[in-house]
Amino acid sequence: MTRSLISIDDLSTDEIEAIFELADRFLDEMATPGKPYRVRGRRSLARDFILSTLFYEPSTRTRLSFESAMHRLGGQVISSAEGASSSASKGETIADTVRVVENYADLIVIRHAHEGAAMVAADYTDLPVINAGDGGHEHPTQTLCDLYTLRATRKQKNKGKDLSFNDVTIELRGDLKHGRTVHSLVYALARFGARIIPSPAPGCELPSHVKQRLARDYHCFLLRKQEIDDLSDDDRNSEDFPEFVYVTPKEPHQRTLWTGAEANVWFRLSLDQRKSLREMKTVDLIYATRFQKERHDSSSEDDAAEDYPAIDAKMLNEKRYRQTQVMHPLPRVDELSYEIDQDPRGVYFKQAAYGVPVRMALVAALLELFPSLLKSSVAPRHEFFSNVEGIRCVNARCVTREENEQRYLSPKFAIVDETPLTLRCAYCDLEYEPSIVSRYSNKKYTDDLSEWREIYERTPQDLVLFVSEQEAIDAGHQRRHGKKRSAAQKVAATPTAK
Amino acid sequence: MTRSLISIDDLSTDEIEAIFELADRFLDEMATPGKPYRVRGRRSLARDFILSTLFYEPSTRTRLSFESAMHRLGGQVISSAEGASSSASKGETIADTVRVVENYADLIVIRHAHEGAAMVAADYTDLPVINAGDGGHEHPTQTLCDLYTLRATRKQKNKGKDLSFNDVTIELRGDLKHGRTVHSLVYALARFGARIIPSPAPGCELPSHVKQRLARDYHCFLLRKQEIDDLSDDDRNSEDFPEFVYVTPKEPHQRTLWTGAEANVWFRLSLDQRKSLREMKTVDLIYATRFQKERHDSSSEDDAAEDYPAIDAKMLNEKRYRQTQVMHPLPRVDELSYEIDQDPRGVYFKQAAYGVPVRMALVAALLELFPSLLKSSVAPRHEFFSNVEGIRCVNARCVTREENEQRYLSPKFAIVDETPLTLRCAYCDLEYEPSIVSRYSNKKYTDDLSEWREIYERTPQDLVLFVSEQEAIDAGHQRRHGKKRSAAQKVAATPTAK
Amino acid sequence: MTRSLISIDDLSTDEIEAIFELADRFLDEMATPGKPYRVRGRRSLARDFILSTLFYEPSTRTRLSFESAMHRLGGQVISSAEGASSSASKGETIADTVRVVENYADLIVIRHAHEGAAMVAADYTDLPVINAGDGGHEHPTQTLCDLYTLRATRKQKNKGKDLSFNDVTIELRGDLKHGRTVHSLVYALARFGARIIPSPAPGCELPSHVKQRLARDYHCFLLRKQEIDDLSDDDRNSEDFPEFVYVTPKEPHQRTLWTGAEANVWFRLSLDQRKSLREMKTVDLIYATRFQKERHDSSSEDDAAEDYPAIDAKMLNEKRYRQTQVMHPLPRVDELSYEIDQDPRGVYFKQAAYGVPVRMALVAALLELFPSLLKSSVAPRHEFFSNVEGIRCVNARCVTREENEQRYLSPKFAIVDETPLTLRCAYCDLEYEPSIVSRYSNKKYTDDLSEWREIYERTPQDLVLFVSEQEAIDAGHQRRHGKKRSAAQKVAATPTAK
Repeated sequence: MTRSLISIDDLSTDEIEAIFELADRFLDEMATPGKPYRVRGRRSLARDFILSTLFYEPSTRTRLSFESAMHRLGGQVISSAEGASSSASKGETIADTVRVVENYADLIVIRHAHEGAAMVAADYTDLPVINAGDGGHEHPTQTLCDLYTLRATRKQKNKGKDLSFNDVTIELRGDLKHGRTVHSLVYALARFGARIIPSPAPGCELPSHVKQRLARDYHCFLLRKQEIDDLSDDDRNSEDFPEFVYVTPKEPHQRTLWTGAEANVWFRLSLDQRKSLREMKTVDLIYATRFQKERHDSSSEDDAAEDYPAIDAKMLNEKRYRQTQVMHPLPRVDELSYEIDQDPRGVYFKQAAYGVPVRMALVAALLELFPSLLKSSVAPRHEFFSNVEGIRCVNARCVTREENEQRYLSPKFAIVDETPLTLRCAYCDLEYEPSIVSRYSNKKYTDDLSEWREIYERTPQDLVLFVSEQEAIDAGHQRRHGKKRSAAQKVAATPTAK
Repeated sequence: MTRSLISIDDLSTDEIEAIFELADRFLDEMATPGKPYRVRGRRSLARDFILSTLFYEPSTRTRLSFESAMHRLGGQVISSAEGASSSASKGETIADTVRVVENYADLIVIRHAHEGAAMVAADYTDLPVINAGDGGHEHPTQTLCDLYTLRATRKQKNKGKDLSFNDVTIELRGDLKHGRTVHSLVYALARFGARIIPSPAPGCELPSHVKQRLARDYHCFLLRKQEIDDLSDDDRNSEDFPEFVYVTPKEPHQRTLWTGAEANVWFRLSLDQRKSLREMKTVDLIYATRFQKERHDSSSEDDAAEDYPAIDAKMLNEKRYRQTQVMHPLPRVDELSYEIDQDPRGVYFKQAAYGVPVRMALVAALLELFPSLLKSSVAPRHEFFSNVEGIRCVNARCVTREENEQRYLSPKFAIVDETPLTLRCAYCDLEYEPSIVSRYSNKKYTDDLSEWREIYERTPQDLVLFVSEQEAIDAGHQRRHGKKRSAAQKVAATPTAK
Repeated sequence: MTRSLISIDDLSTDEIEAIFELADRFLDEMATPGKPYRVRGRRSLARDFILSTLFYEPSTRTRLSFESAMHRLGGQVISSAEGASSSASKGETIADTVRVVENYADLIVIRHAHEGAAMVAADYTDLPVINAGDGGHEHPTQTLCDLYTLRATRKQKNKGKDLSFNDVTIELRGDLKHGRTVHSLVYALARFGARIIPSPAPGCELPSHVKQRLARDYHCFLLRKQEIDDLSDDDRNSEDFPEFVYVTPKEPHQRTLWTGAEANVWFRLSLDQRKSLREMKTVDLIYATRFQKERHDSSSEDDAAEDYPAIDAKMLNEKRYRQTQVMHPLPRVDELSYEIDQDPRGVYFKQAAYGVPVRMALVAALLELFPSLLKSSVAPRHEFFSNVEGIRCVNARCVTREENEQRYLSPKFAIVDETPLTLRCAYCDLEYEPSIVSRYSNKKYTDDLSEWREIYERTPQDLVLFVSEQEAIDAGHQRRHGKKRSAAQKVAATPTAK
């Protein structure tokens, strides 16, 4: 079984740890004196292998980083540096491209403007695929570099090598909406228990689907300062204390009282967590990102530009940032002053340097150069609907909406909740609550949602779901008479595309 | 003597066979279990060599395929992925580029928008040159992959490894006009005796010059159903029997009665061929190609799009396609349904996979890594006129028409017939029948064509040919008075640029 | 200490000689029989190293030449072939790019449209940096190839291997204004004592700052035919004798009478030099260059095109060119006829071939594969002002004027003369004579230039210089009353930006 890295969730915590230990080993053996973060020289481990980069979006950093990693491992590289100069301009689909390129290489690294594109690639090839960025969705190898940098920082402080970051407070600054590095990072941070303080630019807040995934998959919730009972009044009124924070309870049972609606978050904090919230007045790490201009429309650009959160020497002199490490996935524009370059708290160039040993370790793992490093597979968190009829993802950047790819690609959803039935697009993470059930065989629809599971289990090919009556009617289905729905069902059935 | 591959005709049948046997050997030694068509690992054969790709047109597939092949052989690659980012944008000619790059590499792979560009490259460098596509002209390495795939298919059926395809019926679908892969392929198929059924989209018929070369060089003629005496009336009236077919008689003397005008084709079929024509009701192979949008003007696009022949599951269920293999050089657009991807008759991804072992073998052969594999040279089929005055190729896509290249490049023609004198552009294959002869020394022209050979043999630099009187006059030549021409000569001398 | 090659002056004469001897060795060991100028095969010297090319401007020749050299040395290459497909399009600065890429490679080769860009790269990385062309400024590796070709030519004539070119007369033709290869070359030729005859196209004369650097740094002056007293009247009136010539006196004291204003150049020629000037009626080398279209505006293009100096067979038949070698950095357009390609005097393809052994030797030297080859550093010719306030370079193509780079980049000047104070932009070589001195601490300016040295030595951070009063006023400085300046000082203080 071939393993791929499409979402940061595709690696278990143990596997991430194993990859980091291998990266440590590469650095121990290959780094030059005085620069313990930089790999030099060349091994023969991957001598027999070819890595192919397929970059449909411009990139220097990530592509060169992978190419360097592959060369340091002793392997070869074939590169397609930009979609414009490739078969893409003749209209070739992702599925066709990877089914051709799999004959030329041993591993594919793909970057693409459409969300879910890397997953499509992985679905259609028997080679390992690495997602080097799919639209505004995820960028998991950047997250590996980020986590490794964070871990290395802590290692230096003699706090060990482990990935339990539940004593860490991280402030995310800038474009949390379209920053794919941010999305992969928050999933990892939530999983490892860190406290996350969002500081978005206006119009650049974390998207709903990211918050939903944070809550559902990692039990990581947004708390508002005014809602935290355990805080002292001083803390609650302090300017130093953040207005919002995402926290992950240590034990799942702690979320029993959570109601699901963000405005009314409440849950019982453990004694430890009460202490830990007080520590949030100091920030351990700022993770800054540039405005993702290429993914915004021009009007939102003006709003964001006016009040984009910038980091400079003055800000780092504030009390709560005195011990703060500054990370940035680069490239930067104006959000991170060059003043910080000489400041030991600015670790973004080291973060870039760590890209090589981390990617070497990842490539070595996926090529099975160290066979016991990865398990044969990681169980998916959720059950999948495939070939589901009716419902379609409405995200214009989702790969399933792309005309070329629709020649072969069907929608695919994860069942992330059953009451109410909630589906998440397997490609781009947007969530939907279908309110209408129908049968392919007789095209009679009902809003009695309770029927879906029965149909799905007996005759899955017969199940058709819609998010609204109108869509069912447009698709030629007719209301089934008879069964009435309860008032409660009516409320739950309100069409929602978050 | 360096060998190059510009036209599929540059390799003898024995040499193609030897290349295929070497490809077999690479697959035997390097393919992974379960995927006998895919090369893995790395040899050290080409350790000391550098392959240079010069791609003036966009490409992923072909370039990466060559790069992979070179890496699997242990060699290195330097690539110029697109003309726009190269010296071409500073106005550099092909001749200059190759005379520089020959110092940087050991073999040049070139793709270019102008027909004949690869031949120019080969003429100006002492390195081996491989034509990876020159405009709508030829793409011989794709043809090697196609033939190898066809041969592999037959090998599986225990029909041996040989290249005599005279029991094979192949239907060519799509854009036969600008599909360079089609052109190289039909020359090879004609040479190996296959029956070719053209199924072009409207406006995408095989060009005249391809048909002329098929007839002249391989004795492969178009037969119309109604003209085949040996067919039964049933066959002749059957919808299953193709309207047109190109067939190659086994022995040259069989074409004695051929008159040369397509509309009146007639020749005596051998007993074998009569049988074999009846077998054409079933097709062994469909070779489909996409519409070559970039080489058509926009008006012809609309015509072709309306009735472009598409392959889907329904069509493959027709009786005559039940045993048909489907090949496609890829990328595809809409002419080949994704339904076929799972059908064992669809072999197009294997065809792509074979690109690596076949190109490895070709590169190894041209680099003389197996010295006895290729002969020192292959004799040209025709005598060449070089430095011929007067006549010029009128094909706007011919490399000799390109303003930059005209700084050094002269027209060059093969003498493909003497009665009437017929010249074929050595670069792009268009044929011309000059009707006017003149002398450089006195600029007096005549339409007595019989004089050309005499002048050519005594004082070749004095020979000037034109396709019309007007051209002679425009070039400052004057009619020579005296000699009258016969009525028969008048007919032969009608200007023709097919 | 890491060494870089930004200007041809960064290598001492001994070091250039050592690099050439290493190139000789590579050719001796690796060239194929019959082609002593072309490297073949592969060494393992740089097995552990990665070269990164960062090409922000289109290039085939130079990039492929470096890549080939690195592969022949056994190393690996990672390439960013064009700025458009890189982080540059996201607004990344040169400093950030190199501080990231230094973690991926062992040596950086950079080409950029801005003058001084390569110096910025070298200032911000601890890797060796090679300037592969920075705007219209310098292209020192081309100069190494040019010198090596010239030396090889002379070596064939049994004149030894040395670099003393004081018996050589070189005619520079074409675009001397924006031809960066010309600029690096004239500095080297001046240093080695050659006589240089400029033959620019109209509007393409050597820029003032190049002439100033020739005079100041190499004591190489422009002489007009009429000003050379010692010539016979015959010589002076001869059409064969060039109108202008740059000559380098053998001994520094010979320039004692030079007044600094071009129009009045005069100095005492030694007896040797008088003889040598007479030899100029024959030219040893023509160095031709194409019109650098991309650096001119469209109006100057028309002027230059009309009378661009072209080289053809007829010209080379003139008496003074009978023994002339023709070099050209390529690509050519119309300035060098294809007729010369077969002429043994045309050495431009050999010149391209020598690019590989010379770049191999340079890369090997900078990577310290032969540790004793380069010294740890070369002393700069001039003292530098850094962080100087007030004065700014006005060259629109200078990297210090680029908005993005100004986020971190400050002007930097070399003090090239003290009477009058003359500053040369460290990035692009333009010279300035400040006429106003002020203090940062009190913003009171004076035109008494004599104060600058005192301030600079005591409190350098307090020194502010302007080229005009208006600039001082615009920057918020006020005239300091009291001290009057002499008439002589008034003249010297006239604002000058040559």
